[in-house]
Amino acid sequence: MNEIKIFCPATIANLNCGFDVLGLCLEGIGDEMIIRKSTEKGIKITKITGADLPLETEKNVAGVAALAIIHDLDLEHGFEIEIHKKIKAGSGIGSSSASAAGAVFGINELLGKPFAKHELVDFAMKGEAVASGCEHADNVAPCLLGGFTLVRGYNPLDVIRIESPSELYAVVLHPHIEVKTSDARAVLLPMIPMKDAIKQWGNLGGFIAGLYTNDYNLIGCSLNDVIVEPARKHLIPNFDEVKNTALQNGALGSGISGAGPSIFALCKGQEIAEKVAFSMSESYQNTGITFDIHLSKINPEGVTIITN
Amino acid sequence: MNEIKIFCPATIANLNCGFDVLGLCLEGIGDEMIIRKSTEKGIKITKITGADLPLETEKNVAGVAALAIIHDLDLEHGFEIEIHKKIKAGSGIGSSSASAAGAVFGINELLGKPFAKHELVDFAMKGEAVASGCEHADNVAPCLLGGFTLVRGYNPLDVIRIESPSELYAVVLHPHIEVKTSDARAVLLPMIPMKDAIKQWGNLGGFIAGLYTNDYNLIGCSLNDVIVEPARKHLIPNFDEVKNTALQNGALGSGISGAGPSIFALCKGQEIAEKVAFSMSESYQNTGITFDIHLSKINPEGVTIITN
Repeated sequence: MNEIKIFCPATIANLNCGFDVLGLCLEGIGDEMIIRKSTEKGIKITKITGADLPLETEKNVAGVAALAIIHDLDLEHGFEIEIHKKIKAGSGIGSSSASAAGAVFGINELLGKPFAKHELVDFAMKGEAVASGCEHADNVAPCLLGGFTLVRGYNPLDVIRIESPSELYAVVLHPHIEVKTSDARAVLLPMIPMKDAIKQWGNLGGFIAGLYTNDYNLIGCSLNDVIVEPARKHLIPNFDEVKNTALQNGALGSGISGAGPSIFALCKGQEIAEKVAFSMSESYQNTGITFDIHLSKINPEGVTIITN
Repeated sequence: MNEIKIFCPATIANLNCGFDVLGLCLEGIGDEMIIRKSTEKGIKITKITGADLPLETEKNVAGVAALAIIHDLDLEHGFEIEIHKKIKAGSGIGSSSASAAGAVFGINELLGKPFAKHELVDFAMKGEAVASGCEHADNVAPCLLGGFTLVRGYNPLDVIRIESPSELYAVVLHPHIEVKTSDARAVLLPMIPMKDAIKQWGNLGGFIAGLYTNDYNLIGCSLNDVIVEPARKHLIPNFDEVKNTALQNGALGSGISGAGPSIFALCKGQEIAEKVAFSMSESYQNTGITFDIHLSKINPEGVTIITN
């Protein structure tokens, strides 16, 4: 195998009560990448469509992630990477992570899988750092592993994959506005009330228990972020209205995807998810801001091979 | 059935990364209570052995819990309660909660179980408040339900019972010293660093995942409290030495039970638990402080009937 075409899905990180630790993988929305072996050593980004991103390997998340995976390997050849972006940059659904995860996944496949999937997370984080300024796994982990992922800790990196209950759907509304990462960070205070932290970890514990027991009611009750969402939601126009309409139409819970501006809702079953998606769209039309809306099951696979 | 004799087990609350939300139920160590119907209405504490506790119903945790469960019931009779304490007051393994839980469990049995087990938690909390000054469920929940319990939240009260992996053992060392509740509370600051809170909820999520997947390694890695233990451990002489010896001898993790002074360790398998218990005892002998040591499987049942 000398060439592989892959699908690199969008992801939701900072999932509500699981700020900085909990993410999920989406279906149907994602980038495509083509990776091929080349006689020239090293990594070369040969083509990017759908986004204005740097072709220089060291400045490109896919390039840096690719360099990380081949770093310790004694290879006689290199790789060329084509990136066809469908996930908009700055949407809050893991655009850069999809590229980082795709690069390491594709190269690992072409090399005959010297690394297990969960080992790829560390390499992909190196690429992700180019975009976000720090190594974090909240998007690359669900993108590579699929389902839900819990990043328990970083020293050493410990990522736990959790299967999604089968009827769980995600709706994502992406308003076409920019939330600057610096703004999203600046509103978070370095110190938080202990009583809020206890509520948050009680809810995270409940959410994890709900995933393992397919308890949709518990999943819904636990989707409650008392720390980050209250601080950030004013950065997203009409956040409260969209969230409220999602809940009124049967969503289990709703919150900010990543650092925004996307707003997500989790729902039980396709019928409710469609109703929720429609109500969220309808509610956002009043803002005059253009937006995309996505409806997706939880993607159990993560990055997948289209052709090889 | 006019009389019931019950076993009311000790419990570990504030389980490490699960401060204020996570508890477990112990086997083999607990109080006994006898509860009987009486022609006289109301609740009467007729006998207490093993501890110097008030006989007045309104000042006794069992009495107040018992009053709470019969409060809305239109009964023609009342109940007498005998309490035979084996769990030392102030040991940090749920002494008062055992009495509160036992009272409501016993009365519910004698009434033909009008309430489900999880509904009893709320009544028992009312009794627990007499001892601790506030209603909390961290000890009464595991005492009533057995296994591990996660108190997700209080508005409304939501307690999740989680089965223990079958080979999990707890070792508890109870130093015969007093840690004043006021001291244990005073060392906790109302504001905590966000970065520590994230570590804590990552670990709690990992611990819950470990329980559901019987992953002892994950349980061990997750047993890491970066917030409460560092603030409280100086209240317990030789805490670090005991914890370290437990870990060196194979414990999965170790921490403060409740608000102390008891120190617990969780272990996989009886053999390791015995080795850990021995090493903890040996380590504590150097302090000159007398202590008890308990070794127990996780109790899957909670309060149980001895005879009726």
